[in-house]
Amino acid sequence: MRVALGLSYRGTGYLGWQSQPSGQTVQDRLEAALSKFANRPVRTMCAGRTDTGVHALNQVVHFDTDVARDAFSWVRGTNRYLPRDIAVQWCRPVDERFHARNGARGRRYTYVLLESPVRPALEAGQAGWVFRALDDGAMRQAAAHLLGEHDFSAFRSSECQAASPVRTLRRIDIARHGAYWRFDFEGNAFLHHMIRNVMGSLLAVGQGTCTPEWLAQVLAMRERRLAAPTFAPDGLYFLGPNYDAAFALPERTAAFDWLP
Amino acid sequence: MRVALGLSYRGTGYLGWQSQPSGQTVQDRLEAALSKFANRPVRTMCAGRTDTGVHALNQVVHFDTDVARDAFSWVRGTNRYLPRDIAVQWCRPVDERFHARNGARGRRYTYVLLESPVRPALEAGQAGWVFRALDDGAMRQAAAHLLGEHDFSAFRSSECQAASPVRTLRRIDIARHGAYWRFDFEGNAFLHHMIRNVMGSLLAVGQGTCTPEWLAQVLAMRERRLAAPTFAPDGLYFLGPNYDAAFALPERTAAFDWLP
Repeated sequence: MRVALGLSYRGTGYLGWQSQPSGQTVQDRLEAALSKFANRPVRTMCAGRTDTGVHALNQVVHFDTDVARDAFSWVRGTNRYLPRDIAVQWCRPVDERFHARNGARGRRYTYVLLESPVRPALEAGQAGWVFRALDDGAMRQAAAHLLGEHDFSAFRSSECQAASPVRTLRRIDIARHGAYWRFDFEGNAFLHHMIRNVMGSLLAVGQGTCTPEWLAQVLAMRERRLAAPTFAPDGLYFLGPNYDAAFALPERTAAFDWLP
Repeated sequence: MRVALGLSYRGTGYLGWQSQPSGQTVQDRLEAALSKFANRPVRTMCAGRTDTGVHALNQVVHFDTDVARDAFSWVRGTNRYLPRDIAVQWCRPVDERFHARNGARGRRYTYVLLESPVRPALEAGQAGWVFRALDDGAMRQAAAHLLGEHDFSAFRSSECQAASPVRTLRRIDIARHGAYWRFDFEGNAFLHHMIRNVMGSLLAVGQGTCTPEWLAQVLAMRERRLAAPTFAPDGLYFLGPNYDAAFALPERTAAFDWLP
């Protein structure tokens, strides 16, 4: 039997999603909790492997098991064994054609950024920070150059293991909410560090260091060294994937109302 | 020379405001940072001593020093020595009649609460949690009984050292923002654990365990054991004090835009 679940977590204390010998990853904690509740080993597959320090609102995971439990028992039972900064939000039986990674038609991320002369404290690790005022018109112009299908080699980490650097960016929305900015990204998939690299370059434009046209050139040149440095993971949130509507999986969790 | 400053912090990792031999308090960290920057001992007085796990957006503090620095140097210089979950937000020279505690005319707190079948994760330690639906009409009726000047002995911790249990509650606003509730409190001052105790009882009413009239009776009886248990500190934020307008001190910080 295949089961899908939605997971929220604060990434600050973890070395990202993917299992490591140290055990200090979200996947390690989730599999330990699921295995304890199911009383046998459970291995999971996720929709988006988040980096160290990156948060998730609706990370979707699937696993196969011969343990029969009703959906909310999986939620409640697994949460009992998870640390307080990770919690299963929902659980659904799915048919075997469902695949959390391969079946995802799109993925959404948001970057939350504080613009202030003073660094974050209350929200440390949960928002990025710039102290210089940002020009939203220039950032929107720059972002427009990135939309569509492109070779994103200029924004790809040297450790990226993807077979192809081509991705489709469907949407970049930039909005201000008081002292905070939100940068919402939607695409079919993202390369390793792609959003943090794009953020670094968008902020170089927003702070007047570079022009919007510079970003178009950087993209066209396909060389990582021409773009701005990778921006901090602190304010990056994986909002979650979406799937064929036939699977009828939840695309929101309570934490969507938490962010500015 | 007397200096006033505004401080934001996440209270999760600290044993509250007030200095302790362990050194694990916000006051200890702030005084260590100020003393390091000033290169001589600095002792502080705050507007509201927060409990273990309670956060602050605009805690106001004053101190006396013979070190002359411009205002933003105090901010930047002190922040260099503070941990990442504490940051000075602003700094102002004030005349000697200013007193952070005695001069405060009112204090504001907010309690942020998640209503969901599943506990918080992303916002663990930063929001309280109820899994049963809340009746806002009943809570507002109950809250109305608490407004004005009363003997709040029913909501006072046994460790409270205040000379009098009489306080004036000027405002309790209850509002819903998606999955989160905000309870905003304004009063002249608050007894030890007073807001967490009031929250426990308001939620007993909101969840239908008690009636709004019960809360009026509990207040009138002035006995702590009749009220509901103390609620978790997780979602409690000290928004800050206010002073005579002549002092012209900031009453907001960037983090006011962070909360739901």
